[in-house]
Amino acid sequence: MNEQPLETPLTRLLGIRHPVLSAPMAWVAGGHLASAVSQAGGLGLIGGGYGDAEWLEHELAKAGDSPVGVGFITWSAQQKPELLDQVLAHQPRAMMLSFGELAGFAPRIREAGCCLLAQVQTVEQARKAVDEGADVIVAQGTEAGGHGANRATLPLVPAVVDAVGSVPVVAAGGIADGRGAAAAMMLGASGVLMGSRFYATEESLAHPTAKTGAANAHGDDTVRSSVFDRLRGYGWPEPYTLRSLRNRMTDQWHGHLPDLEENLADERERFQSAIREGDFSLAPLIVGEAVDLIDRVQSARDVVEGVVAETAALLGQGAPNVSLRSGHQE
Amino acid sequence: MNEQPLETPLTRLLGIRHPVLSAPMAWVAGGHLASAVSQAGGLGLIGGGYGDAEWLEHELAKAGDSPVGVGFITWSAQQKPELLDQVLAHQPRAMMLSFGELAGFAPRIREAGCCLLAQVQTVEQARKAVDEGADVIVAQGTEAGGHGANRATLPLVPAVVDAVGSVPVVAAGGIADGRGAAAAMMLGASGVLMGSRFYATEESLAHPTAKTGAANAHGDDTVRSSVFDRLRGYGWPEPYTLRSLRNRMTDQWHGHLPDLEENLADERERFQSAIREGDFSLAPLIVGEAVDLIDRVQSARDVVEGVVAETAALLGQGAPNVSLRSGHQE
Ligand SMILES: Cc1cc2nc3c(=O)[nH]c(=O)nc-3n(C[C@H](O)[C@H](O)[C@H](O)COP(=O)(O)O)c2cc1C
Ligand SMILES: Cc1cc2nc3c(=O)[nH]c(=O)nc-3n(C[C@H](O)[C@H](O)[C@H](O)COP(=O)(O)O)c2cc1C
Repeated sequence: MNEQPLETPLTRLLGIRHPVLSAPMAWVAGGHLASAVSQAGGLGLIGGGYGDAEWLEHELAKAGDSPVGVGFITWSAQQKPELLDQVLAHQPRAMMLSFGELAGFAPRIREAGCCLLAQVQTVEQARKAVDEGADVIVAQGTEAGGHGANRATLPLVPAVVDAVGSVPVVAAGGIADGRGAAAAMMLGASGVLMGSRFYATEESLAHPTAKTGAANAHGDDTVRSSVFDRLRGYGWPEPYTLRSLRNRMTDQWHGHLPDLEENLADERERFQSAIREGDFSLAPLIVGEAVDLIDRVQSARDVVEGVVAETAALLGQGAPNVSLRSGHQE
Repeated sequence: MNEQPLETPLTRLLGIRHPVLSAPMAWVAGGHLASAVSQAGGLGLIGGGYGDAEWLEHELAKAGDSPVGVGFITWSAQQKPELLDQVLAHQPRAMMLSFGELAGFAPRIREAGCCLLAQVQTVEQARKAVDEGADVIVAQGTEAGGHGANRATLPLVPAVVDAVGSVPVVAAGGIADGRGAAAAMMLGASGVLMGSRFYATEESLAHPTAKTGAANAHGDDTVRSSVFDRLRGYGWPEPYTLRSLRNRMTDQWHGHLPDLEENLADERERFQSAIREGDFSLAPLIVGEAVDLIDRVQSARDVVEGVVAETAALLGQGAPNVSLRSGHQE
């Protein structure tokens, strides 16, 4: 493969070879995954998640000298503001803030000379994030695995591009191969961020059963719900919900949260034991609609290189079913 | 413009110049809109909607000799099976069936030599529609205006393409310009179907206030809900909901359907009078997330030609922010 088949404003800004980012998936994206993605030429993000200082230190150590980034769940990290200094001390290549107000963190990140990525779910949030100092906007659609909101990637990305001027936009949600990445580029994105696809890599910290489960799952079988957040006791604010594969737990309680509330103690016990046993008929297998496009567990490097090669081929050769006649453009 | 800059399996199958279809929008897509789209080189579909025989006859007459198609809301049309013969007598270029089982209608449509388009919302439905004889699959994402379900266009389209073999796939939902159409082509689509964009054309039957409203609206402000279906008394089956702009009516009742039920008589009166008065703070302005990309009311011909030209330019010149280096492909 060409050293750098796809150069974009994002690759220039971040000093990376490929416009491919791995999502900062809580508990799933550790130092091994992030460093593997960065070493393959993309940018890997460690999932700071709900803010466990010890876990973070451990995973940052595993990343070693690789230029990785770190992502925070903003509303959660704001409850432990000291985490930011801890992370910035490692001089990450980038920080990504998702789900909450940037204002508390943005100035310190920028003062530290660190690139600030803001993941947003609406055009309005994108505008605000740019005003507050974001260097890159990650526009995330509802089809994404994990937490998210309501707008869908395909119409959200061009609307965000139009709204933020020259700030590079990264597309997230529903992208798991070169077709999705090439589509995102046509919409005006300067890069893609993938979560589900990297969930099913050798380096991810997901349970082995969950990884093969992801490779065999169907996009028709995912659901956005608050059931697992209630069971985990995470205080997610509106409008954020979690997309995962539906299973017996979501079948039983999705749309019946008041009933779940009444049975919470028992259900939490059942839930915890399912997690311990790796029983994903009850525990959450957290992937998005793009699982249709994932058919095996690979190394992170193979994912990055495969997606980049397919994207470059599509952009170079044109869309698969279109015979382009450009007589008028001569 | 080149006579036919974008040739695809869909243009060949339907005998049309441009791979652009206008959606069969109930009450909105009449004979004038459909024929204008077909005359511009795409395929216009008249919205058979809830099956008013007189309205259909009238709109088919307005289409005159233009090669248009007709769309049915399948579950509704099945309550008036005689409508199919009425429409087939006009020898439409294509019939589109959405939201329900094809089985009752598919054989008669095919026997009449008419091309059968099936609009689906899941991969599973796409597979089934092909088994039942669909010639083309329209894969519709949740961001669409009007009725729809839960999956999003960007990951749905490639998954459907992979599932249906050589059957042409048309992407619908969230597409309103050449960026969306070029993205759809990268995903493997052979064409696009747009609703919201054609809602805001001179030829559509939407209320003039609603058309300018669409041109000024924000994609962040749409919502998928059953509120208006309850008010209209349309018996939509699960899981279908209507995406429209949110307004005072959805703000009040979305998520509170049981309360609406208790106030139904009064609210219907308020609703009917809002419709009569063209008051879209209470009446539904039915568009999808793609409204961000619509900034004025144009002729249907200008829409078709503009979208085709932009799509061809993007596919020919490459994605806006990507410098493609194809050293390895020489
Ligand atoms: C298992 C999993 C965990 C995630 N956790 C986080 C998180 O902690 N913080 C965050 O900003 N995004 C998180 N996300 C969302 C991703 O940042 C990203 O938006 C999403 O994965 C993109 O959609 P895709 O899954 O279709 O690639 C998570 C996603 C997954 C699949
Ligand atoms: C005002 C309006 C009415 C619609 N009515 C119908 C209908 O009667 N039958 C149907 O199959 N689809 C209907 N649709 C959905 C379209 O077929 C199509 O899937 C959708 O418009 C595509 O998404 P877009 O609005 O983002 O272009 C309607 C859409 C709109 C905007």
